[in-house]
Amino acid sequence: MTAYTATVTVSLKTGVLDPEAETTARSLDRLGFDIEDLRSMDRFEIDLDAESADAAAERVTEMTERLLANPTIHDYEVSVADRDA
Amino acid sequence: MTAYTATVTVSLKTGVLDPEAETTARSLDRLGFDIEDLRSMDRFEIDLDAESADAAAERVTEMTERLLANPTIHDYEVSVADRDA
Repeated sequence: MTAYTATVTVSLKTGVLDPEAETTARSLDRLGFDIEDLRSMDRFEIDLDAESADAAAERVTEMTERLLANPTIHDYEVSVADRDA
Repeated sequence: MTAYTATVTVSLKTGVLDPEAETTARSLDRLGFDIEDLRSMDRFEIDLDAESADAAAERVTEMTERLLANPTIHDYEVSVADRDA
């Protein structure tokens, strides 16, 4: 078993309204910052042990589909890296 | 002016309790997933125009310190990349 850290980024699909991001963008505008667009997303770092990086990615993808993301409204990306002890 | 996209990752400082991450980790455990640790963080992608990548990073760092992160409890990372039109 090898120690891995998986990174999951969960974002709203294009077209899904994001009131939190809209509020944040408006607040930045009010503070005098000039921005074109702002998108907010959730990021999870998961430490796990697995036989291989592929096995770790597969397991984390299953976690994401079952709990971390809602496939109806979210897109997600999973990446896996070796974890230093 | 060049078009850039800045990515800001806001995470809790080590030692700051993260009840949301604890709940998520416990739920994954209950679903039968065996994980060592889970950390949750917020990620923002900000599109902006600036004279240079350094100028964009400086401006986004100021946005982060003024609005996106609370320096008392958060660490943050800012990175900047060219934005495709």
